[in-house]
This record gives sequence, C-alpha cells and structure tokens, in this order.
Amino acid sequence: MQLYVIGIGAGDPNHLTLAAVEAMRRVDVFVLMVKDGPGRDELIALRRLILERAVPDGGYRLETVASPARVPEAPDYCGGVDQWRRARAEGLAELFDTKLGPDQTAALLVWGDPCLYDGTIDSVEDLVAAGRDITFEVFPGITSIQALAARHRVALTRVGESVLVTTGRRLAAMDPAEITNCVVMLDSRTAFLGFADTDLEIYWGAYLGTADEVLIRGPLRDHADRIARTIETARARKGWIMDTYLLRRPRLA
Amino acid sequence: MQLYVIGIGAGDPNHLTLAAVEAMRRVDVFVLMVKDGPGRDELIALRRLILERAVPDGGYRLETVASPARVPEAPDYCGGVDQWRRARAEGLAELFDTKLGPDQTAALLVWGDPCLYDGTIDSVEDLVAAGRDITFEVFPGITSIQALAARHRVALTRVGESVLVTTGRRLAAMDPAEITNCVVMLDSRTAFLGFADTDLEIYWGAYLGTADEVLIRGPLRDHADRIARTIETARARKGWIMDTYLLRRPRLA
Repeated sequence: MQLYVIGIGAGDPNHLTLAAVEAMRRVDVFVLMVKDGPGRDELIALRRLILERAVPDGGYRLETVASPARVPEAPDYCGGVDQWRRARAEGLAELFDTKLGPDQTAALLVWGDPCLYDGTIDSVEDLVAAGRDITFEVFPGITSIQALAARHRVALTRVGESVLVTTGRRLAAMDPAEITNCVVMLDSRTAFLGFADTDLEIYWGAYLGTADEVLIRGPLRDHADRIARTIETARARKGWIMDTYLLRRPRLA
Repeated sequence: MQLYVIGIGAGDPNHLTLAAVEAMRRVDVFVLMVKDGPGRDELIALRRLILERAVPDGGYRLETVASPARVPEAPDYCGGVDQWRRARAEGLAELFDTKLGPDQTAALLVWGDPCLYDGTIDSVEDLVAAGRDITFEVFPGITSIQALAARHRVALTRVGESVLVTTGRRLAAMDPAEITNCVVMLDSRTAFLGFADTDLEIYWGAYLGTADEVLIRGPLRDHADRIARTIETARARKGWIMDTYLLRRPRLA
C-alpha cells in the first residue's frame, strides 16, 4: 500500500500546502488517530473541516483508530511513550489489514508537521521494519510555532542567534541564563511560571489558526499570571487547550 | 499601504500554503530582494517559477530591490548585520515611495519562513517605527529544515527531546556532548567536519525541493568527507549552494 503522512498545520485549513492538497486528492482512506477525552469531538470536527477544504468533492473514506491513552507524567516517561508508540503501530496495522486493499492509498493526518513532536513517522517505520509492504511519503506542514510567530509578527531568531525548541518538562529544569530564544511545546504544567521573576519576554498563543485563537505578548514578569489564568479559563470552557510560546531574552539596548 | 511578508518555502513551489497563494493573488507589486553574486539569476528564476505557480493569470508587477552586500564573517558580526538590515530597510522605503500607491498591496517573498533566520520582519518593523503607514501581515512557509526532515522521513525530535536550531558559526563553538538534535543553517564553513570523529549521525540536504536536490544521511564519521566533497562540487558547478542538516546523537540501544 501507499501511505502519506501529511502535516496539516495547527488548525487553519489555509495552512495546508499545495503539495498536501494534491496528495489528499489521491487518497482512498484517511485515518484519523483519535484520542479519548475532552476535545475529542472538536478535534475530529476540525480535521473534517480541513479535509473538506482540501478535498471538497469527497470520494474518500474516513476511518478512525484509537490513539492509546498514555500517562505523560509517568516516572519512566520515555519507556511509557515507547509503549504508547508500539500500541499505536499495532492499531494502525490492524486497520491497514482490515480496511485497505493492497493498491489503495491511505493518509495519516498529523497536526503541525510530522517532524516535530509526533510519533507517526516512527510508528510507520516500525511497521515497515516488521516487514509490511508500505511505500510512504512525508509532507511537511506549518507548525504551531510558525503560526505563533506569524501572528505575533516576530522572528524566532535575531541576528546570528539560535532557537531551542523544547517541552514544558525540559523547560522546568532549565536555568534562565541558558535561554536566548526558547520555544516551548507540550507544556501541560505552565512551566513559564517558574521564570516569572526573570527579564524574559513571552510570545504566547493558544488554538492558533482557529476561531478561538488567543495571543498574549510582553514581559513575562507582567504577563505570566494573566496567561496562566487565560489557560485555566479556556481549559474550563473548552475542556482542552493547545498552546505554545516563545521565551526570549530581551535585546540589550 | 498593505504589505504581505510571505514565506514561500525552500524551493518547491508546491510547498506554498493555500493562505500564501490566496494572498499572492491579491498583490499588486511583488518585491524581490536580489543579492548580487553567483546564484543571483537562478534564485530570481526560481521565485518567478513559484510566482507562476501561485498566480498563473499574472496581473501583478515585479520589482527588484538590491539586497546590500554584507560580510558574514566580519569580526563584528552582529553590528555588520544590523547595518545590513538598515540598508535593506532604506532600499525598501525608496521602492515603496517611488513604485507603490497608498492603496496598493505589496508582497515580500521570503525563502523558507519569515520567522527563521530572516530579517524581513525586522526591516518592516523599522519602517513602521519610523512612521510609515504600512499595515502588514506575515504568512508562514515551509522551511528548508522541514523539507529536509520530510525528504529523509525523520523527526527532528525523538520522544521528549529538544532540538536546537543554530548556525554553522555557533555549531563550530559547541561541544559534541551538548548535541542531542541540532539543526544547522547558514553553514558556509562546513562546521560539521569538526565533529567527524564523534558518534553523531547526520541528515544532510542541499537545494531542497528543487531539481538539484541532494540528500545524504548516516554516521557523520562515514559521511563527513563525502558531504564536504559534494558541497565543493555543487558549489563549483552551480556557483552557489543552500544546504542544511540535522546532527543527532544516536539513540542508545
């Protein structure tokens, strides 16, 4: 079978690339990985919206496969995720076996870009390594980081600088002095609060590219509490949140 | 005036987003920043190709503005780039004054994404800060990093890891022990050669998304010399090269 792993952006259907759209129009079966819990239905609906934007004429089948639950805060974090990834590969294998013909083309839709904080490529490589006859291609997509930077109209790197892309977990262990430009994803613990007494600046955004988009920027010292409250309120209202932010050392005058 | 700063990807016209294409169809004047030297004409031609893909019906004007020369290896690197950025803002200001009406829409096309190693947003902010009446919007684009990862079908981050995006200049000053996932852009000095006796893996690519694309991957120890020779040969043949790579610490078995 032919398999496309397609980055669909962070939420704005217009962030699809032309290459992604062309590929999506050749697809027989779209596979949506579905995680139980709050946001489940809304995130399915959002992917349907993106699908309709890309393939208005339809003609495809939609299958869902359960994305197994995992405990990201488990003591053995990496081991837990590996197990999760294997479970996901098994779910995919079963779906491919039962729902797809050998000459058909399937697509896995990935939020953002498959190259960043996503295990889909690895799951597919696992299936290939296990001997499955899968030809696969990867399509890049606009990440929430890029959506964030574009909406704030800010570059992640100033002249000659680096940018570190990391997790809330890792940020929590960092020394503020190490931070020049630091993009944080997967922060379920509002790790930025630990840096609220520094001179760092924050560019924060949630639900980027969707109707619920929220943007806040400024000195972290002044905005940390407001962002934390905004997260709390949004999570209470919608049941889930996807947010990301850039922490930056201010430029010396 | 209305100004769009549009990320056009690394070279593949199909990496344009739908949002970029829609915006481009509303543009009166496209401004190409043109740098003298080898590659000048080819890089203009490539942007024309991307324009034709996005706006096949034409109806726009094309203007070029000289991107002032700079010496990236100058001792005062940051000062040199600041000066370069100011010179570029002046070039843009003159063009806007002489070639654009107040009700017209202009677009600046940026390779990759305007948020990564690009000074266009800053130049525009400089113009706005100087009192110019410019309303501007930024459109994200697929970076060469994402094109690289998609073509190698590799994720930049394994479970829970960070990725550092940096320059050849900064890589040269790094300790191999600091590297987990490190993406290097703007490396004119083959800085990876300094790490050829380590256990790092490299995923390298040049002219990504174009007909000249080259991809090499594997243990750096085995491939560093071959990549350096490939760069030398390509640069001799084409007169210029755009390449990027991921250095990665191998996963422990």
